[in-house]
This record gives sequence, structure tokens and C-alpha cells, in this order.
Amino acid sequence: MNGAQTLVNTLVDQGVDICFANPGTSEMHFLAALDNPRMRSVLCLFEGVATGAADGWYRMKDKPASTLLHLGPGLANGLANIHNAKRASSGMVNIVGEHSVSHLKYNPPLSSDIEGLARPLCHWVRRADSADTIAWDAAQAVEVASEHPGKIATLILPGDVSWREVKSPATPPVGNRPRKAVDPARIEHVARILRSGEPAMLILANKATRGRALDLAGKIAKATGARLGSQFFTARIERGAGRTPIERIPYAVAQATAFLAPIRHIITVETVEPVAFFSYPDKPSLMKQEGTSVHPLVEADEDSELAFEALLDALGASQTTGLVQERIVTPPPTGALNPISIAHALAAAIPENCIVVDESLTTGRESMGLTMGAAPHDLINNMGGSIGYSTPVATGVALACPDRPVLCMVGDGSAMYTIQSLWTQARENLNVTTVIFANNSYAILKLEYANMGAGEPGPQAMNMIDIGNPKIDWLAMAKSMGVRSVAVETAEDFTRTLAECLAEPGPKLIEVRL
Amino acid sequence: MNGAQTLVNTLVDQGVDICFANPGTSEMHFLAALDNPRMRSVLCLFEGVATGAADGWYRMKDKPASTLLHLGPGLANGLANIHNAKRASSGMVNIVGEHSVSHLKYNPPLSSDIEGLARPLCHWVRRADSADTIAWDAAQAVEVASEHPGKIATLILPGDVSWREVKSPATPPVGNRPRKAVDPARIEHVARILRSGEPAMLILANKATRGRALDLAGKIAKATGARLGSQFFTARIERGAGRTPIERIPYAVAQATAFLAPIRHIITVETVEPVAFFSYPDKPSLMKQEGTSVHPLVEADEDSELAFEALLDALGASQTTGLVQERIVTPPPTGALNPISIAHALAAAIPENCIVVDESLTTGRESMGLTMGAAPHDLINNMGGSIGYSTPVATGVALACPDRPVLCMVGDGSAMYTIQSLWTQARENLNVTTVIFANNSYAILKLEYANMGAGEPGPQAMNMIDIGNPKIDWLAMAKSMGVRSVAVETAEDFTRTLAECLAEPGPKLIEVRL
Repeated sequence: MNGAQTLVNTLVDQGVDICFANPGTSEMHFLAALDNPRMRSVLCLFEGVATGAADGWYRMKDKPASTLLHLGPGLANGLANIHNAKRASSGMVNIVGEHSVSHLKYNPPLSSDIEGLARPLCHWVRRADSADTIAWDAAQAVEVASEHPGKIATLILPGDVSWREVKSPATPPVGNRPRKAVDPARIEHVARILRSGEPAMLILANKATRGRALDLAGKIAKATGARLGSQFFTARIERGAGRTPIERIPYAVAQATAFLAPIRHIITVETVEPVAFFSYPDKPSLMKQEGTSVHPLVEADEDSELAFEALLDALGASQTTGLVQERIVTPPPTGALNPISIAHALAAAIPENCIVVDESLTTGRESMGLTMGAAPHDLINNMGGSIGYSTPVATGVALACPDRPVLCMVGDGSAMYTIQSLWTQARENLNVTTVIFANNSYAILKLEYANMGAGEPGPQAMNMIDIGNPKIDWLAMAKSMGVRSVAVETAEDFTRTLAECLAEPGPKLIEVRL
Repeated sequence: MNGAQTLVNTLVDQGVDICFANPGTSEMHFLAALDNPRMRSVLCLFEGVATGAADGWYRMKDKPASTLLHLGPGLANGLANIHNAKRASSGMVNIVGEHSVSHLKYNPPLSSDIEGLARPLCHWVRRADSADTIAWDAAQAVEVASEHPGKIATLILPGDVSWREVKSPATPPVGNRPRKAVDPARIEHVARILRSGEPAMLILANKATRGRALDLAGKIAKATGARLGSQFFTARIERGAGRTPIERIPYAVAQATAFLAPIRHIITVETVEPVAFFSYPDKPSLMKQEGTSVHPLVEADEDSELAFEALLDALGASQTTGLVQERIVTPPPTGALNPISIAHALAAAIPENCIVVDESLTTGRESMGLTMGAAPHDLINNMGGSIGYSTPVATGVALACPDRPVLCMVGDGSAMYTIQSLWTQARENLNVTTVIFANNSYAILKLEYANMGAGEPGPQAMNMIDIGNPKIDWLAMAKSMGVRSVAVETAEDFTRTLAECLAEPGPKLIEVRL
């Protein structure tokens, strides 16, 4: 057994059983090792698709996927979605091919400082030294990636380490990951705040916005009158009818500040206090009211479920029933497509168990709030702000949950960064419906231009925001990569088409002409 | 005048008058400043297109372009083509938007270690501290980028530096860049070698493969019997009928070794001795014969023209006439498309003054040698080996040379990395004909799998090299971004279509079905 085979075996032993790959010459032995029935390999035509898909996989599975990338530039192409995954606390194991040690000294064209490229965005970076130790390297990578919160681990794999025979095979133990409880003093402190009756909001994030942790948060809210909020972007929220409802803090600084104005106590759970996404000349960075206190309840590496149980105990409220979002049936929308009719279309068409990956920016920002009472679904957001996250993440999500419909909502500008995802969706026949909101502009930037106080854009600046010349033909784009597609121009058509697409297997694309 | 306006003004004053931009919120004031009639702005839908286009611009203009990128992830998306540009010795000035200083401490979602991301692949990295000093920062960036060989300069631009008023405007002097001569002792040494009559080859690169330097190299060859060679990949070669012919060292290690076997003295000019692109278990890294000596004549930062003049003087051969490639008219090919018929089609169809950007890998590797006697043209190669360089570089080349036809030859697998280039080509109505060699596989990797001694690929490994499921519909892809397209299946059709496309203005795409 050679180094590459040992690596693949160890990854699978440790629970990493999918590899999103974009291979090159230096990875040929790893490719050969992928002929292992326990590892699923998924080909991506661009590395940003591979790393984004690994992010999506983690968000649904709570365990890391692996990627295969080709030397420094292959890693570089994957970095933007590694940044997004890191900010979403998604675990991931990247295998980056590298020249053999004996070849590196000649500085061949594809050589670069791979460690240097990896370090700014990865939690753990190691260069495999020998085939004999690679099992330990791989086990350590998975161990780090599987921590809570998830981490980015990157293992650099020189060609000769891949192809050399392993002399003394090792089977590292599978890591054991205990849950980290919260300091009882912090629980007591927050219990006192909540008992005071002063306006308070728990801001939930990461693992606290789903499953039992979310139910427990609902009980705390019910027992104390505290509100439940989330940042504008969250890694994954279980929401809709029957779920514990969470209020979303608005994106725009002025609206967020107004939203938070009545709150006296912000209690943070796996997150920090709300911060503006960008800085603006005349706006604050922190969005809370002056005088509002911030109380960390659960730090990023602690366990929300354990903390909420202890808090309910401290409050004497363990037997409280939780909050439940009612089903809200909105009228099927008619006529023109606008944020309201789009929201009603979504509320009507999203099926139970759907996973919604949202990167709709301008269009979706106003719409999603109106889908609180839709059938129960998962909502996934872009945590890192690097555009081009959604179509790759939807790809990984669909592979993780083959029995659930996936709805990917994306603006036309955003979709173009990693559009190669469609090809992998067609190849793997994934149940992803991609909705392109085609407004033919970087519309979000028109708003931001004004927010920045940069005045009225001149013709040249406006030209840099306009992507309507030429208009992207989304039906042709989908066809080019083997995805069925349809365009809609009315709310009725959108509602009906969306429901149909989400009910059928396989990938589809809907161009929403705005 | 604010910081952003001062920056744009300084760039233009220093000779950088084009900006390949993919802006975001933090760059709104820079965007406003682009409303400057002296600066041309070109919108790119993905950052790898922007940095690749800047590379193409430099290769034809010998002066840097600027790019506008959105924080760390925007830079990350541009890094692969920055790597390629760096290896091609292309100068470039990247402006990377960043949060304001006051906002950074809150670690907002899009913040990352931009310097850390930039350093491995950039020669010069600086964070602009204040609007008052940004003119000097910009002048220094251009100064560094304009050195010989060209350098990658990256200036990080915080939002508040952009929007603050400049109190004391400065006008930095325009840099003066003297040519660096070669040590006379080295000239004498090489003259002795050449006089010895032992088999010698000058390996030319960068500025030595074109213009007067190339003519002078031809005289040296004529006077001494030394051969002229180039690495398999060169930044830009002026070749074809009437030009000084250069032999191309083969890509594959076995062929390169055989090619170099008769050579006793390798004389390097702006390059180093030939090194294998990748390492293989049973093949050498260095490709020269044992016993062959290597003599550096011109280092990367020295001037080949000055060196060749001095060498001709030392040889007493200044009056020698040079070498001239004859026009070779090959018969118009007929029948099936294969490397030979494709080569003959190219030889017949490439018009005078054409600029050929080659990333055809499997197909082109065998074909290009047969076009030595075509009409005079420029040939541009991928120097860094990161796939996805050609369509962006062709975009920048066409903007640099609007009156010359540009032929971009690319494999189907390679084209998918940065396919967004087509949109910019359509938007700017550039004279680029993109030829897609559609073999529906990463065919190069099938060869490399065997070269690596990884044995016969198993079904899963083979599946990772096969990109034919689904087949990419290139006509639909071109249509989606507003580019006219046609598919060809015979040599006659290819020859005729290629000649027609290169004679007409505007972007076109030819799918060559293999």
C-alpha cells in the first residue's frame, strides 16, 4: 500500500467519506487511490466548487468532507469558499498536491509557497513528510476539522509521499470529541439578567439555531419573555411552521440599529454582538443602542444544548413548553415579480424538508422574512461574504441529503463566480433547483454606492455596476452544462414552476426575469 | 480630492491607464474615482479574469495594468492568474479594497489577513495608511511593477483612506528605469564557449524572444553555429515567416532529454536550465545530458539586447546577417481533425500580426511546432501552469492591441476555470476568436496517469478524468455570454471557419469536436 492509498483509507476510517476533487498531474497516485469503494469522489471543474461543496456537506452532516486541489494555485482558487466555510464554522479537510521534495529545489513553474497561501484561512496546515507517517497526519487533520466549531485543515501531499510504499502501516485511533459545558457562574449571571424582566434578546448562532438546542431556546424565551434573534447571516437555521421562531437582525445599519434599540441586554450564543457587515463614512460599526449590555452565554467552542439545559434549571423552567411558529398560508401571488410576490411564491412553493441556500442579496434580503410560516425547512446563508458560495454549497448539501429538495436562490451577478457548479449538479443528478434573480446588475452595489455617500454614480461608475450588456442568457447557460431550465416573468408562473421543479428529481434552473 | 481620486490620478500619471475591476461595497469610492477620462475601466465577472487580463495587457504593452479586487477573498480568486503572471514576469498593480481601520477590530465577516494572502505570490505588498500618502504608495507600486522583469505589486486600500480628503496633494516623480548591462567577464566567457565550436544552445526567454534582441540572437547563431532554443513555455515569442526561428524544447521529459542530448553547452538568457514541469517516480528533474555545462549569459533582471550587442562585438560578428524563417505554405488539410490537420489548419488560417494565446495542452502540444512557417505572429504561453489563464489573457491582449486579431486556443477542461472571460469579450466587443478543443476529458491527465506509473486507471479514477458526462455544450455556453459560435468537425471546416473568424471583428467561439 502506498502513501496515497493509506491517506484515503485513513480519511475513510476517520469518517471522511467524500472527496470533492479537481486533480492535476501531481495528484495521479491520489486519484488512483480514490478507486476505493468506501470513498465517494465528486469531480468539480473549478476548485471553488469543491471547497464550497465541502462547506455544504458539513452544514448538513456536521462532519467534514475532503477536497483534492492541485498545488498552490488550485488551493488559491478554493480559498474564497474556504473563507466562507471558516466563517460558517464548517470543518473541512483539504488535500493539496505538491511536487516531490527532490523536484522542489528546481523551482518548477507550478511551485509556490503553499503553506503561506493556506495559513491565513486555514486553522491547521501540515506538509506530509513521509508515507510512513501520513496516516497520523490524516487522522490529525480530521480530528482538527471535526472540532466544535468546525475547522479548516489542510494537508500538503508531495508526489513522492503519495507514491512511496508504506513500510509500517498504522491505524490511528478515531478521535473522541467531548462536548464542552459552560461555566456555571455565567449561567447564573444570565439567569439573573433574564429574571430582571429588562428587555433582552438571545442571539443564536451555529449549532444553537437547530435541533434540540433551538427547542430549548424557545423554552427560555417562553419562560422569561426574552426575544430570540439571529444575525442576518447564520450557518443553518431550522425554521418554518412547527419550529421555534427566531427574529432576524436586519442587514442595513440603520434598520439594524432601530431593530436593536429596545433591547437592554444582548445575550450571545455561539456568536458575538451584531457588527455592521461593512464600514460606512457616517455609520457606526456596532449596531446596539448605547447603554445596552452584552453578555456572552455560550462561546463558540461550547455546547449550547448543555448551556440551555443548565439555564432552564437555574430559571426553574425546565418544564416550560417552547415557542412554536404557526403555519401561515399566504395567498398565491399574482402579477408582477417583486420582493413581496417573490416571498409569497416561496412561502407557497417551499415543500416540507426543503433546504434553502440563499445568496439572493438584493432580491432575497426583503423576501425571506415573509417565509417564516412556510412549511418547515432549513435556511443556509453566506457567513463569509465572499460571493459565489451558494451554487457550490447547494451542490454539497444535495449530496449530503439526497432525499431532500434543495432550493438555491442566487442573484445573477453572484451566480457567475462559481457557475461551474451546475455541471457537477448535472453529472451527479442532484435535486437542486437554482433560482437566478436576473436583474442584470450588481443591484446591491447601487444601494451601497448611495449608503457610502459616494454621491450619484457617474456614467463610468454606473457602467461598472451594470451587468446587463450583454445580458446573460441563463437558459443557454444551464443548457451548456446539461441542466434543464425555464424562465418566468410573473408571480403565478414563478410559484407554479418552483413547486414543480422542487417536486421533481434532478437539477433545474429557473431564471426569474426582474 | 479624496484618497481614491488621488490614487486613480497617480496611477494614470505613472502610466497605468486601465483597470480590470470586480468591485464590492468597500470599493465604492474607488469606483466613483474611476469616472476619470484618463483611466479605462473594464468590468470582469470573476477576479481571475481581471488578473489574467492584466497579465495579457502587460505581455503586449510591457507596462502594468491595474486590477480592482474586493478584500481578501477577491484577491484569493485572482491569485491563480497572479501566479501565472508572476511566472511570466508580467508587471501588475492590484488594488485590494479593505474595511476601514476603525471597523477591522470587530472582525466583520469579510475580514481576513490580506497581507498574508498576498505575500506568497506578490513581490510588493503595502497597506495604504492615509489619504495623504497614497500618491506615494501608488507611485511606488507602479515603480516596482514596472521593473525588469515585471513584478506583482499589491496595494491594500482601506475604505476610510479612500473616502478621506487629501490635505496635501503630492505629485510623485515618474520612475526612470535604466537598462541593466551584463558583466563583461560573462560576455567573454560565453564568447570563448561559442568560439570553441562545441555544440551549444542559447535558451532564450522573456524579452529575448522578440524584437531587436531576437534578431541579434539570430546573428549570434548564424555567426557561431549555436542553436537557438526556448523553454516549452515562453511569455511571448515573435515567430513565423520572416522572424528568427527558435527551437522549442519538448514538454515530456523523455523527449526533452533526447532533444538536449547533443548539446554540450547550454547558455541561458533571462531563464534557467530546462527543468521538468512535474516530478515523476522514475524520471530526472533536470533534462540536460550528464556532462553538459550551463552558462548564464543574461540574468532575469539584465538586458538581453545590450548583452547580445556586446557578445557580437566580442565575437567580431556585428555585421553578420541574422537567421530568417521561411514562409512554409502547407497544403490546406482535409478530412479528420487530428494534431497534424489542426496544425495545417492553423498554419493556413493564422493571419499576419495575429496574437496566439495557447492553452491547448493535449491538442496543441503536438500541433504548434508545425506552424513555424506560418505568417508572422506572436505566441503567448502559460508560464505558471495554473489552468484557466488563456481566456483572461486573450481578453487583456485584445484590449492592448485592438487592431490585431487574437486567437485563443484552449482545451475544454481548461476553458471552464475562467469561462467568465467570454462575457467581458462580448461587452468590450474584442477581436478574440476562442477555439475550444473539445475532447470531453482531461486528456492530458490520461497521459500523465501513465507517465506517473500509476498503472491503469480504475473506473473511479477514470471517471475523475472524464468530463464528457454531461458533455459541455459550447455553443450554448458562448450564447449565454453573448458570443457568436460555431462547431466544426472536419479539417476543411476548421480551416475555413478559423480564417473567417479571425478576419471579422468581435468575439467568436469555435468548438472543435474531437
